[in-house]
Order: sequence, then C-alpha cells, then structure tokens
Amino acid sequence: MSIFNTKGLSSWVSVPADSDFPIHNIPFGVVSYQGQTHCASRIGDFVIDLALLGEDGWFDDLPLGNGAVFHNPTLNAFLELDKKAWTSVRNRLIELFQSANAEIRDHDDWVNKYLIPISDVEMQMPVQVGDYTDFYSSIEHATNVGIMFRDPANALLPNWKHLPVGYHGRASSIVVSGAEIHRPYGQTLPKDATTPVFGPSRLVDFELEMAFITGKANKLGDSIPAEKADDYIFGMVIFNDLSARDIQKWEYVPLGPFLSKNFGSVISPWIVTLDALEFYRVAGPIQDPRVFPYLETLGDKNIDIHLSVSLKPADSSETAVSKSNYKYLYWNMNQQLAHHTVNGCNIKAGDMYASGTISGPTPDSYGSLLELSWQGTKPLKMNDGTERRFVSDNDSIIMRAWCEKDGRKIGFGESVCKILPAK
Amino acid sequence: MSIFNTKGLSSWVSVPADSDFPIHNIPFGVVSYQGQTHCASRIGDFVIDLALLGEDGWFDDLPLGNGAVFHNPTLNAFLELDKKAWTSVRNRLIELFQSANAEIRDHDDWVNKYLIPISDVEMQMPVQVGDYTDFYSSIEHATNVGIMFRDPANALLPNWKHLPVGYHGRASSIVVSGAEIHRPYGQTLPKDATTPVFGPSRLVDFELEMAFITGKANKLGDSIPAEKADDYIFGMVIFNDLSARDIQKWEYVPLGPFLSKNFGSVISPWIVTLDALEFYRVAGPIQDPRVFPYLETLGDKNIDIHLSVSLKPADSSETAVSKSNYKYLYWNMNQQLAHHTVNGCNIKAGDMYASGTISGPTPDSYGSLLELSWQGTKPLKMNDGTERRFVSDNDSIIMRAWCEKDGRKIGFGESVCKILPAK
Repeated sequence: MSIFNTKGLSSWVSVPADSDFPIHNIPFGVVSYQGQTHCASRIGDFVIDLALLGEDGWFDDLPLGNGAVFHNPTLNAFLELDKKAWTSVRNRLIELFQSANAEIRDHDDWVNKYLIPISDVEMQMPVQVGDYTDFYSSIEHATNVGIMFRDPANALLPNWKHLPVGYHGRASSIVVSGAEIHRPYGQTLPKDATTPVFGPSRLVDFELEMAFITGKANKLGDSIPAEKADDYIFGMVIFNDLSARDIQKWEYVPLGPFLSKNFGSVISPWIVTLDALEFYRVAGPIQDPRVFPYLETLGDKNIDIHLSVSLKPADSSETAVSKSNYKYLYWNMNQQLAHHTVNGCNIKAGDMYASGTISGPTPDSYGSLLELSWQGTKPLKMNDGTERRFVSDNDSIIMRAWCEKDGRKIGFGESVCKILPAK
Repeated sequence: MSIFNTKGLSSWVSVPADSDFPIHNIPFGVVSYQGQTHCASRIGDFVIDLALLGEDGWFDDLPLGNGAVFHNPTLNAFLELDKKAWTSVRNRLIELFQSANAEIRDHDDWVNKYLIPISDVEMQMPVQVGDYTDFYSSIEHATNVGIMFRDPANALLPNWKHLPVGYHGRASSIVVSGAEIHRPYGQTLPKDATTPVFGPSRLVDFELEMAFITGKANKLGDSIPAEKADDYIFGMVIFNDLSARDIQKWEYVPLGPFLSKNFGSVISPWIVTLDALEFYRVAGPIQDPRVFPYLETLGDKNIDIHLSVSLKPADSSETAVSKSNYKYLYWNMNQQLAHHTVNGCNIKAGDMYASGTISGPTPDSYGSLLELSWQGTKPLKMNDGTERRFVSDNDSIIMRAWCEKDGRKIGFGESVCKILPAK
C-alpha cells in the first residue's frame, strides 16, 4: 500500500482543478512520441517518461531487476515483477514530484526531458493482453436481462448467487480509447422468422464495465486464495464491452457470446493502481446465501468509483445517458480472481478481467442501452432532439470513471470510441 | 503448396517403418536441449535444429527477413511471415534431406550438428497462443449432446446449421503433450439438490479435437473470405479439450463454459502444415440448408485424418476407446475462419482454433467419454478389467492422429496427459 495516502500532498507539476491525475493518482500507461514508445505515468496534463527516469538512475535502488523494464512498448515486463516493485515506483514518483522536492523541479533540463505535454503523445494499449475474461457480477444487470429475456419471476439463474459467473472473451480486439470501430456484419434472426438473415447489426450497444489487470502469474494447478488476490492485481481501467444484441441473441446458445462481443472492446489508457484506489474502498452488498469459504473476503473489498456514459452524435454535443457506480457490484475482484483460479487455471501478467455491465438500482443508472431503453421500448432523447434505442452510426460513446472522497479526487480519464457505418 | 508431393521421395535420415514423420511431413515445433530452445523440424526419430541451419546460411536465399527467426522459444515470429516463407522453408528441408542430396548428408560434422535424437530433446509449446477459440463443428457430437441434455426430437439448436458455433476459451492453460494435470475443484449441483456443493470434479472427461493455428494477422475491421483462409492457416495439432462435466453443467448458463474447460488443454507438439496435409483433402458433408455466401467454399476442404483415443490406467496397458476421423466435421476450417472474422474480429500469429469434439456416426467413434459411456450409463471395459464412465485419477489419455493415402502416411504424433488426483 502507498505510504503517501495523506491529505495536503501536492505536486510542483501544475494540476488543473478537477483533474483525474493529481499526484495522489500516479497511473501507468504507454505513450508514443518522437518515434519512441515508452512506459509512462501522468500528473495533471503532463506525461512522465519512466524509461528516461530509469535511464538516468532515479529508480536504481528499487527492486526492478535490470532497470530497462520501462523501455518496452507494453507494461507487461513491469507487471511481471511483484507488488513490492509496483508500489516502490509509485512511491518514488510521488516522492520526486511532490511540491517540496527540488531534485528534479529545479533543473529545467530534467523537467523538460521527463515531462511531456499530454497533447504531444499518442496513448497506446498499456499491456499486451494475454487472456481476457468477462464477468457478469452486477445483480441489477443480471436481473434486468433475466426479466427481459427469461422469466421476470425467476430473473436470476440458480447459479448466480453462488459463483461469479464469467466467460472467456477475445483479447486481440481490445483497443485503447480513441478507436473507430465499424458496425459489425453478422447473422441475425428477424422477429417471427425461422431462418436468419445476414447484414450489418442493427442493435449495437455499449456495456459500461471496469476491468482489472493482473501482474504476478500463478502456476497451472495452483489457486489464488481470495485474501491473497490483491497481491496479484495491479490496477484497473474503464472497459466498454461493445455488443451487437441481435447477433448475440442468435448465436449465443449453447456456448455463449462470440461474434457479438469480439469486434472491439475499448479501454481507458491509464491503469489506476490498487494502491491509489485503496483510499476509496467501501463495503459491498451483503451476500445471501453465504458464499463458499473459497469466496469469503474480509474487510471492504468494493470500491466507490463513480461511472458515467455519454453519447455524442457526429454533429452534436454529448448527452449523458447513464450514471452508475462500481460499488454496486455483488461480486468483488478478490472473489472473481479466487473463483477463476480455484480449479487451477493459471493467470499471467497483462491478463484482463472485466466486471460485466455495471447497472445501478435506478433506471438512470443502467449500464447498457439494452436496459436504458428497455429493449428499445423507451427511446432516449439526445440534446439535438434525436432519439436513441441503440447506437447510431457515427455516434461516439464516452465513458468516464472517478473516485472522490474527503475532497480528494482521482480518475481514470475516458474510454471513447466512435461507431462507424458497416464497411 | 509443396512442390514435393510426389511418390518415391525418401530421406537419407533413417525413418522407422510406420513413422508419423517421413520426409513428406516436415512439421514445425520447438525443442529444448543442452540449455537452448530453438525452432525445429523432424524426420523419423531425429529433430532438425532450424536455428543452426539458419545460422550456417542454408536459408539465406529464402524470404525470412533477418534470418534469426528460428532462434526463438516459439514459432510466432516465423508464423508472422507469410505462406510463401512457410512453404519455402519446408521445401528447402525436403530438398536438403532427400536421399539424393549429399550437401549435408556427406558431412558428418553437419549431420551431427543439425540432427538431434528425439530422445535428447524436450518438446515445448510450439507457439505462444494469443487467443484460443473452440468451435462445435461435429454434427454427430452436437446431436449427441442435444439428445442427452435437451430434446431428442430437436437435438440440434436452430442456429447450428447456419453458422459454425464457437466460443472463446482460455489460452494460458493450453499445454504441450506430456503434461500432468490435477483433477480440478469446483462447484457442482448434486442430483435433485437445489444448492451446490464444492469439491473435486467427479466427471473429468476428454474431448477429441484437432486445432488449426493461424500465421498472418488481419486488421481489426477486416474480414477474411473463406476462399482466402488457407493463406492465413499455418498448420494443425491434436487438441485434447479436457472438460469437467459436472462443473460445466452448473456454471455454463447463460454465458458458456468457463472453469469446466480452463484447467488444462493438451496439444501435440508438432504443427503439421497445411502444405503437408493438402494431399489428404476430401470433400465434406453436404451442407443443407445452403450456407450464406460468406461461408461458401469450393473444392475439397475437409481432410481425411484418422483419430484415436486410448486410456491408460496407472499400472496397466492402453485400452483403445475411440476411433474417429476429422473428415466427419460439418464445418471446415475455411468456414470457421471466415465466420470468426466476418464481423471484423482480428486474428494474430499463434492464435489457436479447436474444432470441437470430433464424433463419428457410430458409438465407437464418439470423441468424449460423455458420449462413449452415454452419460455414464454404458461403462467402458479396460484391459485390466476395470470400468470407466469418466476419467479416473492417474489415468493417462493418449490421442493420436495420422493421414494415410496411396501408401503414404504422415502423422501428428501424440497428445498425452495424465490426470493426477485433486491437490
């Protein structure tokens, strides 16, 4: 855990009011600029080049092995180290960039070398994703879907409260914020038809999710106990699990979603560490029936993360369509990881685990258009007067996530993507 | 396509009668010996070190880029080249090692340097698997499962004949032949119970599958037409998709199999190329109803690959339990890859795509114990007098695959794994 969770901490790097990236955050990402790609952090609107800091010896006494760990186009090598290494770098950055520390501050050449304006860099995928798992851990979302597609009286399936339902997804099509993604083609079954048709999906949707990323690996055959899961989790990003509802409905029996989900998933570029999020921990919902011992966790294992989604038509302003919160999730990350490995499944550095759509208890907090428009029966009004049941061509989907407590805010930035017409 | 699909071809490397690896095969794999890990091929019981051949200039005129492509612990970099490169190396190996060619044959120092007895090497995973997809393309298997678990009168679900049903699986837990895998723990629902129990799976099963591996990548948003799929497919391996049936039954609704499938999948170590398999192409089953245009293929797109499964109790001999054939598959690889990418999903070098359980039309050709023992109602007799409904602790599962036509045989070797007791 960070040694710097104290009030009054500030940085000599200027931080705009309401920034997601004060010195309390210190997220990790990968940036390209001037023909090079390096691992980086961020304070305010400046990127901190970790490869150059490392080169100049600022991390020499930290447990980072050969020290070239940030000279990579992904964070995977850094994540393969352990929590001690992760925390040591974040603490060192807080130390170097806090207001009182003159070591770098008073040397213009170093300041200009290490700090790059965010507008001068291109954000890359922070990790090479090995495997990607999607959970289904919001009881409100699972209930809404159960009411719509199955039996309102038995909306939750019998297994739902006994285990964090999850399934494997496609890692290759996870892309970083700013992506433009074409409406996918696929097979769908028209209403009352018995044979499918082929064409562009008519029901493209977003799913508001958060994802955690693991660092340390376990060996095939070894389980990770729920209480040890924090040691394996590096941090979190926003995750937009784009979904084609009509393709999903036709393809998903009996083995689950496939092409309806793998045409693109969009993450925010900065991984916010568990260390930074620790301050915002809250208790989760009471779990009844009691979970099996391998799923039991102690203390506050949820996190109070505010979430929002806006839709932005091509020539119009944003319309806010959902406000939710990560803390509503029934199953927490520790339980998800303990369940994932209880059978001996091995995890690796860079693996990603999305939460499932995070819906809250009220209709304005639902995490997908499927729920917000209730299968298209309640269209949403946009600022420009148009309506949305699902995503239209050239709409941008903007997701934001941030924590705020005792006047201290940290955030995840944005996951933005634009849906282009079918090719 | 190989230029060497001719009768009468033989190698100066001795090849035991009935070997899977005559000079017509030339598979690709990764071997460790004397502290190094290199890409390799095989003739008879000798491994050919491709890194050393490359170092000495034998591939200098081939389109392999910097030439160090085989000095890697995986074949991924080689696979990222294109079909022309893949074929050029195979053809060069056939040229160098055919009986009449004295270039290497007559130099003992080279022979001893390049050829290593198979008993002296340890086989590694041939590729780092990026994403893994499992199809469900055997009509006999899907029908058997439908009869057992759903409605015998409507065993196939409505989508099955319109698209090759598939789902994403876990890449990290795919391991190479020779693995020992512990019986997994998990939640299961006892018969007539309403709440689950936790413990070791009682119904561990194999699934007899073949998998293809892609080389060339496509960009997110681009589709691969069925008729172009061969250019993206490097070759094939045997794939044992270990499954815990009791865990699967409880967890798989509504999003598909998860922990029941990701505790270990076991492949054969040598990738047999499409070039080598071309000679064994056969027509597939007639597809009725007619498939959508994006799934149409011309010519013989199935392959006549004989498949067998044996079970070997710890202190006993093997008992053959299944004889099947890859040619029974309703959906071919070209259709699987075209479907997978029709929505713009991107694929990468090293990605793996399993066929789904390959069951034939007769009860002795079923590809899983679930079907062979018909949900445990028809136990199988082992040589040692014991019976099997599902896999017992310390049983080894041995899968073999080979092609034979006009007296010419090539094979895949074996996928072997042993199921250890739960930890």
